[in-house]
Amino acid sequence: MDIAWIGTGIMGAPMARRLMGAGHRLRVFNRSIEKARALQADGARLASSAAEAATDADAVFIMVPDTPDVEAVVGQIGPVLRSGAVVVNMSTVAPAAERRIAAYLAERGADYLDAPVSGGDVGAQEGTLAIMVGASRPEAFERVRPLLELLGKRITLMGEVGAGQITKLANQVAVVLALEGAAEAIALARAAGLNPARMVEAIGSGAAASWQLANLGPKIIAADYQPGFFIKLMRKDLRLVAGAALESGVALPGVAMMASMFNAAAAVGHDLDGTQAVAAALERISRAA
Amino acid sequence: MDIAWIGTGIMGAPMARRLMGAGHRLRVFNRSIEKARALQADGARLASSAAEAATDADAVFIMVPDTPDVEAVVGQIGPVLRSGAVVVNMSTVAPAAERRIAAYLAERGADYLDAPVSGGDVGAQEGTLAIMVGASRPEAFERVRPLLELLGKRITLMGEVGAGQITKLANQVAVVLALEGAAEAIALARAAGLNPARMVEAIGSGAAASWQLANLGPKIIAADYQPGFFIKLMRKDLRLVAGAALESGVALPGVAMMASMFNAAAAVGHDLDGTQAVAAALERISRAA
Repeated sequence: MDIAWIGTGIMGAPMARRLMGAGHRLRVFNRSIEKARALQADGARLASSAAEAATDADAVFIMVPDTPDVEAVVGQIGPVLRSGAVVVNMSTVAPAAERRIAAYLAERGADYLDAPVSGGDVGAQEGTLAIMVGASRPEAFERVRPLLELLGKRITLMGEVGAGQITKLANQVAVVLALEGAAEAIALARAAGLNPARMVEAIGSGAAASWQLANLGPKIIAADYQPGFFIKLMRKDLRLVAGAALESGVALPGVAMMASMFNAAAAVGHDLDGTQAVAAALERISRAA
Repeated sequence: MDIAWIGTGIMGAPMARRLMGAGHRLRVFNRSIEKARALQADGARLASSAAEAATDADAVFIMVPDTPDVEAVVGQIGPVLRSGAVVVNMSTVAPAAERRIAAYLAERGADYLDAPVSGGDVGAQEGTLAIMVGASRPEAFERVRPLLELLGKRITLMGEVGAGQITKLANQVAVVLALEGAAEAIALARAAGLNPARMVEAIGSGAAASWQLANLGPKIIAADYQPGFFIKLMRKDLRLVAGAALESGVALPGVAMMASMFNAAAAVGHDLDGTQAVAAALERISRAA
């Protein structure tokens, strides 16, 4: 398959590399072109624009930061896409925007998948991402499924275009509240004079168990805020959640609180730290109290 | 060992039964005496008061609903305890009350352990509880450890008296926020028209994974509010968390929010349902919005 890959950042580059490793020919483009150049060594052809990368491609993958970035890429590639091409957006963006993009591409005879991922840069490198898919047609999903299987371990077709994004946003909702649970449990244990690592060990295999407690709990305790996933990006995702909640008329009080917590963490300098730095914001609030 | 067991409710009865199953002689007492009678068939001697049960006992176990209940039991058994006895409170109560009780018993030559549990009635029956222990002296813990090992799988000595309770409260903090994450993720998915069970499956093995999502998520989806753990008891536990947080000067905004959510669930008739019924309160809020 002739594949175009747009967006070769911390997630996109290792994902593109996995496709090449399986023998696929890739044309790659990135707005900061230096980040794409490293892929040339692996056999990628460097394109000078998204449109050049997408011309005559069978499949176009997009992995960029935010909704306007995806819209800009689609605007550029739309006019050059060959009929029957499949565009696969793996960025996390607004579900409503996805439905508009799918309609725009359908007019040009192209299929569209929203296929956001969970699992971070390690998952991207190891091909163990969870991929949550919405598709313009199930046939389009089947066509690119072998490619997705090179990138992820658990690939779920959730429904029509937008369903992948909703699933990813639901993922983030469960993530941030479990994280806050870990942060507040640790804050309480520590303030009361307990050894917080021992506390995490004592409670970590029962009803309190979570990926967040097991993986980010020790980092919170060590004040190790090295990013697995940036607070800045989680703030973006929670804005998308708020938009989707408003659109479908559902109240999410925990999400509203967590948006405030992450904003507070950003305000005290942690926007480019990992999500676990929300514990630092919690500490600031306690010191002020 | 001569053992007294005070409190033979949904947790206490199966725990007492496990000790008898290992060959220990038990004298049991329960305020509603009918609940203790069932244990006679297993060989327990029925006492007509907590004091009668505790007289000459080597160890006294307490498993009752709340702080005043434990204080009442201790007030009754204090005068009759033999010197060198160990009192083990497995109820979840206020850490500050535990420290007062330990001081009162120390004057009478008795040791005290706060040893609250996690794992529910199933854990009580199967002897797989997590037990979080604070002890007046490590030697007192060692003396009853073989008994605790009949009741639980993971038994952690956390520190001095009160440390067990703080650990249990930290457990509840992590529990309720992970539960809210599951409830809000499901609410979002459902409101946006997704199959919520499929969503849980798609996100359930990555960064969003939690015991709450895996075990209570399906119940939330099915609106199955059969209690594993009563909302009423969780509301009590969150009041204890609020007290402990105030005492140690730590801000826990997520806990404050969850106290409101569980109060709302109680207000709309779910106080004697399982904690997963917090999802019903969330739905009410959405319908009102």
